[in-house]
Amino acid sequence: MRAVDVIRRKRDGKELTHEEVEAFARAAADGSWSDYQLSALLMAIFLNGMTPAEAATLTGAMANFGTRYRWDDVPGPKVDKHSTGGVGDKTSLILAPLAAACGAIVPMMSGRGLGHTGGTLDKLEAIPGFRVGLDEQELRTALKTIGVGMIGQTPTVAPADRKLYSLRDVTGTVESIPLITASILSKKLAEGIDSLVMDVKAGRGAFMKTHAEARALAESIVRVGTANGLRTEALITEMEFPLGRAIGNSLEVIECLETLKGRGPKDLEDLSVTLAARMIRLAGLADSDNEAQAKIRQALTSGAGLEKFRQIVQQQGGDPRIVDDYTLFPTAPHRTTIVADRSGYITDLHAEKIGMGGMILGAGRQRAEDRVDHVVGVIVRAHLGEQVANGDVVLDVHYRDESTLANALPLLRKSVTIGNEAPAWRELVLETIRGNSVS
Amino acid sequence: MRAVDVIRRKRDGKELTHEEVEAFARAAADGSWSDYQLSALLMAIFLNGMTPAEAATLTGAMANFGTRYRWDDVPGPKVDKHSTGGVGDKTSLILAPLAAACGAIVPMMSGRGLGHTGGTLDKLEAIPGFRVGLDEQELRTALKTIGVGMIGQTPTVAPADRKLYSLRDVTGTVESIPLITASILSKKLAEGIDSLVMDVKAGRGAFMKTHAEARALAESIVRVGTANGLRTEALITEMEFPLGRAIGNSLEVIECLETLKGRGPKDLEDLSVTLAARMIRLAGLADSDNEAQAKIRQALTSGAGLEKFRQIVQQQGGDPRIVDDYTLFPTAPHRTTIVADRSGYITDLHAEKIGMGGMILGAGRQRAEDRVDHVVGVIVRAHLGEQVANGDVVLDVHYRDESTLANALPLLRKSVTIGNEAPAWRELVLETIRGNSVS
Repeated sequence: MRAVDVIRRKRDGKELTHEEVEAFARAAADGSWSDYQLSALLMAIFLNGMTPAEAATLTGAMANFGTRYRWDDVPGPKVDKHSTGGVGDKTSLILAPLAAACGAIVPMMSGRGLGHTGGTLDKLEAIPGFRVGLDEQELRTALKTIGVGMIGQTPTVAPADRKLYSLRDVTGTVESIPLITASILSKKLAEGIDSLVMDVKAGRGAFMKTHAEARALAESIVRVGTANGLRTEALITEMEFPLGRAIGNSLEVIECLETLKGRGPKDLEDLSVTLAARMIRLAGLADSDNEAQAKIRQALTSGAGLEKFRQIVQQQGGDPRIVDDYTLFPTAPHRTTIVADRSGYITDLHAEKIGMGGMILGAGRQRAEDRVDHVVGVIVRAHLGEQVANGDVVLDVHYRDESTLANALPLLRKSVTIGNEAPAWRELVLETIRGNSVS
Repeated sequence: MRAVDVIRRKRDGKELTHEEVEAFARAAADGSWSDYQLSALLMAIFLNGMTPAEAATLTGAMANFGTRYRWDDVPGPKVDKHSTGGVGDKTSLILAPLAAACGAIVPMMSGRGLGHTGGTLDKLEAIPGFRVGLDEQELRTALKTIGVGMIGQTPTVAPADRKLYSLRDVTGTVESIPLITASILSKKLAEGIDSLVMDVKAGRGAFMKTHAEARALAESIVRVGTANGLRTEALITEMEFPLGRAIGNSLEVIECLETLKGRGPKDLEDLSVTLAARMIRLAGLADSDNEAQAKIRQALTSGAGLEKFRQIVQQQGGDPRIVDDYTLFPTAPHRTTIVADRSGYITDLHAEKIGMGGMILGAGRQRAEDRVDHVVGVIVRAHLGEQVANGDVVLDVHYRDESTLANALPLLRKSVTIGNEAPAWRELVLETIRGNSVS
């Protein structure tokens, strides 16, 4: 099969055959087509789309041309959650221990932050000593011992995704529903899970800016996941405003610990509990939605989730004492505040602007090759709907040096709006998309 | 300017700015964008098109990033003809000497054959000793001395076209009107001509299979040429059937010599005279269409064209005695015939099938890197509309070995159809597209 013939067919709007899609995935994995041919096909896919069958084949093939973990020797249902990313989105660190505390096996493979959005790996690495680079045997031991492991993508998992993602980034072919679907799900299939809860974020702080875009991606992911034998459910959740109060890696880990101690922000606690409950429901560890919710609430209030988090840190080489002693986290050398210039209600907290401000401080990456500074970030003292008086602190800013602070401050200031009336109620879960195969 | 931003704008259907299009052409010429970015943009252009302004800018920029000849020191109007290629299309070898004999300066830069279509350079190289690789100084001397030079594309002319053409070939982005236009005209602009007659072939033996496709290309070429200051006219001519009777390089050169001696096939003579007349009319060497036609006819009947051909051969290192003594051409080791299996009229001679048959014999190239065999080919003994009796020779086949013959014969046989009634009159020139700037 010649690359140029496959490209021409997609260019002409034809549906590619199973064999043609597989050849594309194989070529991305093994380099048998040149980068310029892969890129031409990516653009043709971007502009002419893929049918559900094509997307499903691409996803499965991208998972299969590479390491695909199997956990047959680990008893229990394997389940994961994946998020499209947002500002202050730290639910993984809360729901993974909660779900594991309820009997789920969670082989979670996460990514790093880019742009205004954070990444789970960066947050975990803010824990002194924590290793995200477990190999297969170490991850297997973690799953057998404590039921959960939180790692980065290993080099042999979905090599086709690695190649295609790097090309898409520089050829303007990122924002394609079938390509995003295949990129996310090929890695999730490779994890060796049976069930997946997908958190598709919608709003200014998310990749998908509108509910309609988020729904299109959510539906594609549920359809393609289900077609590949993965019990898949997607929640479309609001990302207009930061989730919780902390933005920045150490600060977010501390907020997760507070949440697991029952003292976290309500939005973060509620969404984490909801997602964890969907995980154990999908995994068959609860017979009803209500039972799933109750079990996760119980794991939270009993401290079982916190205990599981401590085990994760210990298992992956981190210092478990951080769970009780936050002074063991390194801290930023400087702090300043942004205060209210009038009294009223916080009527807007622009997620993307706060996220970009945090990125400029060093908490995130402008380019994939940048390094993050784990200690810097922002704490929202007055969140959406909260009342402030003139001069009250709205944002705490943890920073390393004056020059980055000077660059970040205008964005951070612009992210806050104070008005006369409290804003309308904030709906966290906008919609749930369930697959056909899920009872 | 970042490549990815330009790609994204074209991907989204936007019109690129002058600066963006120039950056693309420069990048193709100097390698400052990667091949995968060029390919992604080529596919976006293929699918979303280019406005006339974009195509004009691209064409001019591709000509300018490279050697652009100037012939200010050569008196007389500079004019060329270019064809999109066909089967038996050998008019360049006839019209270039005819136009030069009438006072035109013809710095003709031609290409090689590919697939079922032939190329002027391959035909010229069938002349013993003929050099198509003149450098700028040699070409200047030729133009000053005899008014005409027939050469190949030099490495420094339109390097962007060289790069883009090689990428288009392997990324399924060949059949794009703006990209074809830019490819053809960038090289013609680089030749340093004032006027161009474009022969856009339409039909089974051509690149453009239908009149409508050919018209779209012809209109684009006239528009873009005119926008770049080139007096441009396009003739859409029929390529359902082979032009003339000879297919194959030596055989075609001999047919050209016969035509310049007034003994050529009528279709070939008529089209060559028509195109040459348009050249000198466009170049201002005749005050009316009729006068142009009469001057070219006079150059033909007087033998001035033949004499000019002899000068070209001599000037470019070939053996000028071939003009009078065809036995100086090398010949194929074997000949066979295809005969009529019934009596009647030749109602079809399928140009693409004959062209492919000739290519298989070795007269053409399957891939750009293949070598051609100058001596092999086909002579049409009974052309469209001619009457044959059962057993009469329809095609003479000149071949090198039995295995290529065996592969070519089925196609050649299938190219001939004999019926009861003579086919309708054959129209050679289907339409003429003139630019606004031409009086």
